[in-house]
Order: sequence, then C-alpha cells, then structure tokens
Amino acid sequence: MSGTHYIDADTRITLIGAGTIGLSFAALHLHFLKSPSQLTILDTRPDLAEYVASTLPKYLPEGQYDLSSIRLTDSLPDAVRDADIVQEQGPENLPFKAAIWAQVAEHVEKPGALFWSSTSGITATAQAEAAGLVDAAARLVVVHPYNPPHVMPLLEVVPGARTSEETVRRTVTFWQARGREPVVLHKEVSGFVANRLAFALLREAVHLVRDGVVGVEELDRVVQASMGPRWAVAGPFKSYHAGGGPGGLEAFFKNIGGTVQRCWDDSGRENVGDGWEDDIFKQAEDAYGVVDTSRRDRVTREVLEAARKK
Amino acid sequence: MSGTHYIDADTRITLIGAGTIGLSFAALHLHFLKSPSQLTILDTRPDLAEYVASTLPKYLPEGQYDLSSIRLTDSLPDAVRDADIVQEQGPENLPFKAAIWAQVAEHVEKPGALFWSSTSGITATAQAEAAGLVDAAARLVVVHPYNPPHVMPLLEVVPGARTSEETVRRTVTFWQARGREPVVLHKEVSGFVANRLAFALLREAVHLVRDGVVGVEELDRVVQASMGPRWAVAGPFKSYHAGGGPGGLEAFFKNIGGTVQRCWDDSGRENVGDGWEDDIFKQAEDAYGVVDTSRRDRVTREVLEAARKK
Repeated sequence: MSGTHYIDADTRITLIGAGTIGLSFAALHLHFLKSPSQLTILDTRPDLAEYVASTLPKYLPEGQYDLSSIRLTDSLPDAVRDADIVQEQGPENLPFKAAIWAQVAEHVEKPGALFWSSTSGITATAQAEAAGLVDAAARLVVVHPYNPPHVMPLLEVVPGARTSEETVRRTVTFWQARGREPVVLHKEVSGFVANRLAFALLREAVHLVRDGVVGVEELDRVVQASMGPRWAVAGPFKSYHAGGGPGGLEAFFKNIGGTVQRCWDDSGRENVGDGWEDDIFKQAEDAYGVVDTSRRDRVTREVLEAARKK
Repeated sequence: MSGTHYIDADTRITLIGAGTIGLSFAALHLHFLKSPSQLTILDTRPDLAEYVASTLPKYLPEGQYDLSSIRLTDSLPDAVRDADIVQEQGPENLPFKAAIWAQVAEHVEKPGALFWSSTSGITATAQAEAAGLVDAAARLVVVHPYNPPHVMPLLEVVPGARTSEETVRRTVTFWQARGREPVVLHKEVSGFVANRLAFALLREAVHLVRDGVVGVEELDRVVQASMGPRWAVAGPFKSYHAGGGPGGLEAFFKNIGGTVQRCWDDSGRENVGDGWEDDIFKQAEDAYGVVDTSRRDRVTREVLEAARKK
C-alpha cells in the first residue's frame, strides 16, 4: 500500500538513525511517498527489522502502509547511493556527524541530493567543515524538528556559511508542500529559536516554583489555560500587538512597559545544577508519572487542526 | 431571556469599570446567571447605556440575552448594596482602588460579599491596607484574568496577607463551577505567574529579533507551530517530563541540561527603552496591521475545545 497523500512519485529518502526522531520522520515521509519502498532506514542496531516493525506502526494510522517494503540496511554506501534526500538524526556529537557526512558525500550518486541534519545544536557550518566537505557543503543544511515531527509542524531550517540558497529554497518548498511550517533562521545561534524561547520561559518557571509561588502542576495549568492556546493561534508578538489595540505593539509597551520591565528586573536566573532539581523533578514525577504521549499527540493534532481554521 | 447554562438563580454580581475587561467579564457572567438583571455595571462614563448596548453584544452569541435588564449605574452605593460579588477592573493605580474598596466596604450589605480585583499588579495586601479595610480585608482577593476572560479559562487567584481561606475557597469553587481554570498563587509576586512566564519568553523573542536571527512574523510562526499547540495540551514541565521518557524531567535534564544551560548563558537581557523598539514595532505593524481579535478569539475557542478532549 502507498502513502495516502503522495506527492513524491520518485523521490528517494534515506534516514540515518532509527531512534524516536528517525522513526517519527519515517512516519511523516510515508504519508507523502507513493510507495514505502522509496524510504531507506540506516541503523546499525542488530534488531533493526523487529524494532521498526514494532515501533513505527505506533506513529501511523492502522494498517495503511506496507512497512515490509521499506529498505532497511546497516550499510551506508548502500543506503545513500540512490538517495535524493539524506536526513540524519544520529548522536549529537561532531565527530560522528563529520564521519557520516564524509561517507555520504563519497557514496551519494545524485548530484542534487540534499543533506539534512536534525541536530538541535551542531551547526551546518561546523558539520561541513569537520567532514571536510567541498562541493557537498552547499547541499548540507540543518532541518531541526520540534518533536515529534510527525505531529508538530515546525522545522527550523538553519543554513551554514556554505549552504546554497538553492538548497534552502528546495528544502522550504519540500516541507511547505507537505503542509509543514519551515522557518529559515538568518543566523546559526546556539539552540536555534524554538528551544531558546521555550528554555527562557522554563527558566522563569523553575524560578517561580523554587520561590514557592506555584507548584509544578499548578504552573502547567497556568500555561495550558492561557498562553498555550493563545500562542497556538497568534504568537507572542502578534498577541501583544493585538493587545495594544489599534496602536499595536507600541501602545502595548506604552501601557504596560513598566510592568514588563519590573518582571524582567526580578526574573529568575536559576542555573542547571543550582540545587532546585530534586524538588522539581519529584513534583513532576508525583504529578505525572509516565506521560501518555500518544494521547498527548492525538490531542495536539486536534489542537493544530483547530488552529488551522484561522 | 436568561443565561444559557445558568447555575446562579440568585447571585448578584456588580462589575466596577466597563472597559474591555469589564464587559468581557459581563459576557462571561451572563452565561451563568438566571437573568441579566442579576448583573450590575458601574461606570461614570456619560454614554454608559449606549456603550454597553453597542459593545457587549460583540462578546455574546447573537440575540441570546435581554441586555436591557442589566442594571447600569454611576452610583457606587446603589451598585454594591445588594451585591454578592463586587468585581473591579478600574484604573491600575492604588489610590483609585483604595477609594473604591473603602466605599464598597461601607455600602455593601451582604456580610459574605466577595471583593475581587482584576488588577495585573497591585496586590490584595496593598489594596486592603490602602483602603483601610478592617473585617472586609478577609474578603478581598485578586482574581487576575488572562484577556479576554470570556474566552481564556485562566484566573490567577492571588490572596493577600489578610485574605481568608474561605474567600479563596469560595472564589475557586465559583470559577470551577463555570468550567474555568482558577489557579491559586502562594505568594504575591509582581506580575503574577502568567505574565512573568510570557514576558520571560518575550524578552528572549526581542533579543532574537534584535540580533537578526529571525523577524517578528517568523518568530511568531515558530511559536504557533511548536510550543503554542504543545503547551495548550501539556504545560512546559509536563512536556519536558514526557520528553525525558520513563526517566522524566530528570532524564530530560541529564540528556540536554548542557544545551539548556548554554541557551540560558547567552540569553538576551534586553530592557524596555534599550532602542530595539522602533524596528520591532514597525515589523509588527507591517506584518499584522490591526489584528482581527474576534476572529482570533473564535479560533482560540476551538483550540480550547480541542485541548479539552484530553
């Protein structure tokens, strides 16, 4: 059986690394490929076939794909030879990624093949340089998902110093055609944008819990009942621009810039390892145990569907 | 005609201040009152009747309420005499609120009447003290909405030093019965919780735009496609606790605590008035003009409905 919304009659995609992110991308790609045989998964784990057969269906509508026709291999040259897109989600260390890309560049045969890294922090510039890529550096770009990518629309596209404009353009076009939300970053900043924003809020969250203002579960309820749903519909700038009425963001800051600054002035500056961890880890464990992520992802899909109605 | 889901056959609610927040609360209350005649709106603007008649319907399902039976007045003693709940959303300055509460305490006749302030920053402790409240201080509590309250479920309940536990309990019960999400704060911290969290993210957002990493509209798209919908379903602690798998939040920090700390180390410390404003205000204006908030609110309702399915 074939992908339900296929737009790729010919494209061949090779995924390097069959972890959670790799299989989530596999599920996403299957949706648009004409046949699962266009997908290759490379991983050296000895139980790859059993693992893919047992894990991948969790990310897919029941019985819709003939997963047995996905090409599984532990040989990099075989995996990438005929690929149009090579997407890696291996361990987050530069020597690993450098070794991978050097081999990919050596064995890939299609001259226009795109090289995508799912890294959350190692820049395309660093990867291309460490791999000693010459021409292929133009085709390497970071495509950082917000997990899990088969659910969340965001893809941060982060070009390196030598990534070509054509690579960026083709990458953006690919994802837009699949109804996803690629956003191109103009600088290779550490953590990229989504994580930096979320971690800034997380830091203040840690501060408020540590300071005894609210508990972990109370803080989550605050977010779930306010900025979460609001920002699903209109991001922070748009929301505050609306909050300023016809005067926009300028009027917003004129009205409550003083309050904003007061909050910034005594914002928390907690650090990892400061000693707040044990209490907060325990509160999270007590409140949530093991979170049912398939339920969370199902509801998130419905939220995304509702937000798209705008 | 009467409220569509009424649970209050007798409760009388008086709103002080008919601004956007006041009328949004009016719309919310009307939904649950047996009759609009149980609602009183106090404001000194000379065109109060015309203003309410033209503005309030925008927040309500069409033709469902007989708004002409709402009691409108510019007399505080008349407005509060028979009130069970007095809810103020007046100007954000302490002398104003002190004067209001002193008069309310003098003229309210029901001994159990609750005094709610919608302030986003002036504590119940400061208001009660400035108003010279004696016994009535026990019944005064901050009930801070996330705008607009007829759409957004969050209500931050922030007791002052002299607020009684019974007042907090009754306030929470009132809102829970209406399907809202009251969260009681354990300390009167400036900005309360929701704004502090949102402003922490906003600060990093300003930094990233100022630094040229993304534009205003791109940053909003990042949030709308990632943490917005995610946090509508599971707040930040719950999300990262899930992200750590069976090991929870502890495993999450073990895995990527280094990345978190790196982002915190070079997070932006922009201040209001630092000179970033003109460019960011202009980007927002160019991207959004005047935001259609009724459309935004309609979609937000659908997102909230979807998130409730969990």
